Amino acid sequence: MTSVSNRVDLTPKQLEHLKSLVSGGVSSSKSVLEQHGMDESAHLPILPSAVAMVSSTEEVSKVLAYCNQERIPVTPFGAGTSLEGNAIPLFGGLSLDLTNMNKILDVRPDDLTVRVQAGVRRMALNERLSREGLFFSVDPGADATIGGMASTGAAGTTSVRYGTMRENVLALTAVLADGTIIEAGRETRKLSAGYDITRLLVGSEGTLAVITEIALKLNGIPEKMAAAIVNFPTLSDGFQAATAIVRMGISIARCEFLDEVCIQNVNALDGLNLKVAPTLLFEFHGTPQGVEEEAKAVAEIAAEFHGSDFEWAADEGARRKLWQARHNAHWAAMAANPGMRTVSTDTAVPLSRLAEAVRVASEIFNASRFKFSILGHVADGNFHVSIVTDPEKPEDLVEVRKLTHQLTGRIIDMGGTCTGEHGIGSVKIEDLVKEVGENGVNVMRSIKRALDPNGILNPGKIFSN
Amino acid sequence: MTSVSNRVDLTPKQLEHLKSLVSGGVSSSKSVLEQHGMDESAHLPILPSAVAMVSSTEEVSKVLAYCNQERIPVTPFGAGTSLEGNAIPLFGGLSLDLTNMNKILDVRPDDLTVRVQAGVRRMALNERLSREGLFFSVDPGADATIGGMASTGAAGTTSVRYGTMRENVLALTAVLADGTIIEAGRETRKLSAGYDITRLLVGSEGTLAVITEIALKLNGIPEKMAAAIVNFPTLSDGFQAATAIVRMGISIARCEFLDEVCIQNVNALDGLNLKVAPTLLFEFHGTPQGVEEEAKAVAEIAAEFHGSDFEWAADEGARRKLWQARHNAHWAAMAANPGMRTVSTDTAVPLSRLAEAVRVASEIFNASRFKFSILGHVADGNFHVSIVTDPEKPEDLVEVRKLTHQLTGRIIDMGGTCTGEHGIGSVKIEDLVKEVGENGVNVMRSIKRALDPNGILNPGKIFSN
Repeated sequence: MTSVSNRVDLTPKQLEHLKSLVSGGVSSSKSVLEQHGMDESAHLPILPSAVAMVSSTEEVSKVLAYCNQERIPVTPFGAGTSLEGNAIPLFGGLSLDLTNMNKILDVRPDDLTVRVQAGVRRMALNERLSREGLFFSVDPGADATIGGMASTGAAGTTSVRYGTMRENVLALTAVLADGTIIEAGRETRKLSAGYDITRLLVGSEGTLAVITEIALKLNGIPEKMAAAIVNFPTLSDGFQAATAIVRMGISIARCEFLDEVCIQNVNALDGLNLKVAPTLLFEFHGTPQGVEEEAKAVAEIAAEFHGSDFEWAADEGARRKLWQARHNAHWAAMAANPGMRTVSTDTAVPLSRLAEAVRVASEIFNASRFKFSILGHVADGNFHVSIVTDPEKPEDLVEVRKLTHQLTGRIIDMGGTCTGEHGIGSVKIEDLVKEVGENGVNVMRSIKRALDPNGILNPGKIFSN
Repeated sequence: MTSVSNRVDLTPKQLEHLKSLVSGGVSSSKSVLEQHGMDESAHLPILPSAVAMVSSTEEVSKVLAYCNQERIPVTPFGAGTSLEGNAIPLFGGLSLDLTNMNKILDVRPDDLTVRVQAGVRRMALNERLSREGLFFSVDPGADATIGGMASTGAAGTTSVRYGTMRENVLALTAVLADGTIIEAGRETRKLSAGYDITRLLVGSEGTLAVITEIALKLNGIPEKMAAAIVNFPTLSDGFQAATAIVRMGISIARCEFLDEVCIQNVNALDGLNLKVAPTLLFEFHGTPQGVEEEAKAVAEIAAEFHGSDFEWAADEGARRKLWQARHNAHWAAMAANPGMRTVSTDTAVPLSRLAEAVRVASEIFNASRFKFSILGHVADGNFHVSIVTDPEKPEDLVEVRKLTHQLTGRIIDMGGTCTGEHGIGSVKIEDLVKEVGENGVNVMRSIKRALDPNGILNPGKIFSN
């Protein structure tokens, strides 16, 4: 295997050739390179050698066939909202920008599906779908591209009810390293036809193929949606309440928690007046009476676990405001700390270990010199510690990495995972080995070698080549 | 690649050696071989050369390492309830029987998970889980093993609400062809850590690895469950009603249809008195008022599409009886035709094409000399034509295969799949090529070669080696 393991800069001849393949242009201008050298994480930027703006699956195919022949590393790029450096071109080479591929190709209300190009953003998609009374459920905080969300295996606040990208991508078109165009999956709601290549590519962070089109499962907008907010004396009380609710088979649509620091931050950013206390947010989807009944049951269980100030946000304005605040938590942390960046951990544990896991995380970061806040998806056992770091001090990042590595080690020992929805990127490579073992990583590596023998696709991510 | 492509019979020396590896014994007795040479399909039996009763992951590892070295084909075997010959050892060799691995290893009510050995059967599992107020949702008609259900990518009547095996297998232990034991996934409800090896193995029909342990997602038994039955003048009316219901965001737990022949058969087998008409069965899970409200909404929509005789089975006895009838449909078809076997098709289409797809199926089989009935999972767009064949007349099977191949061709042209939940087995290999294209199948083949270079695992399934 002749994998890419050193920085690659394109020759003028290579650049010229690539320009002949791509209608949207190939750029090496400083500002464009800079924009494609970073994501929403606190990772230090690494510039690609060039950026190609592709416009079609066929263009992606031509570019990859050429890059494979020339051993040029290719890192796909969407909205740049990844949180683990997933889109940062570690070895330079070509950043493949898919944001021009932003067409919603086929809305099929009667099939509850939509087919989109990889560069479509989730908010634009939902705006279009709302006209049909439909929605696409996966909602990470950022307005990411669907291609990026598929590649990262993204999830969001509604995953407890509607699933993550793994459950919502029905089919896709992708291009292999050698330029071969493949179709995976079908736009049916059930499928058992051979290996599940769709779900192999979802979450593969652009290391196996470049996803160019995606068919998604949609849901009808429920007749009634209502949210509720409850405070607890401790997060642990809140988690116990949430577990009891899930066990009862109440099908909550969202169940999130924010610690006191998060509440302070979102109050400041969004001009809200939420009580500063460990807080759970719930959402219910269904018929009007069903929603009311579920909310009542939840309020009762919350009270058993010392929940107080159960507040009902039944009207659409109040509901949206609450979730906007939750989605803004990441930016609220940055706004509260001007000039700083945040590192977000992404561990998940079996439900019963959540309180312990969050306690471990608090202990680790309380013993450090960093400011942090904790929030997460309670009913999924997935939480994020958002750690404030100074981009001017690279030693900050080194120290934070040590702490997060310490946390993921403890979480994996508890039966948890180092990543619930952000992916491995380049920093959690060792954590993945600890998590699935050398044998597990070797299986992944064999698949990588089988599909990308020259290792040109997003090298240095998920495992060292 | 030195794949298995001819029948392999074990030498006395090989048999002796295998006996030294397996505590549960290795048998070559005629009755044992016969039992492992067939499944629930109408495929003609093919006997393995020997059957090994394995008791642990370590034993599976030793057996596979030896068989890989000796190039002995290995076909995993569970309850033998597959419907596409998935467990039939096409090239003889060893049938690896996992039914002794029937321990429920770890029920974790607070995590809503359970870990089981591959040979545990779904009904025994649910009996154990009911003590905790929990259930495992996937319910194919047969009392299959969890390992078999995972390998086939099985689904059932509740998949519309709770998903198929793909959504419910969280993690697994498996053994590669060379005996390497791997862990895939984690017992967390969300995971984005590297390639999704779990879902690659789910549905791989034992061709990539032998699954030995499985961690499953569980659900709390809902406070209220109620079923309803509605008749329609035509199936098409029923499908339109069902699509309208799904679009409204009503979260039905089950939505099934049976044609008139099915109703006649189950009436006869179960001593029921259901009206002989195209029939939809619904189930609702939730709070008492929520369920009532959903049922009311469904009744209204059904009436709009000419549904009649909406009958409510709110009490537990009536509800169970209704679903028992549905689950018995396969056996009811055989009971109505003594001495006969049935071939079951398994196509799925995008929701809006279901009426057309069922019409095409009816036309094809009405024009044939075979008796048949049609039933299916409306809200998943997945349906089965159950065709009655005479096992004494091999020419029957040849003719039926031609007809089913004709049907799958039409379905694939409609954007559908040749299999929603039964898998490819050995007969739908060409259909898979039509469905995902040569490039798509080649990706599967590359993965097969990377993980099982000698092609010993269940050769001749999914694709020709």
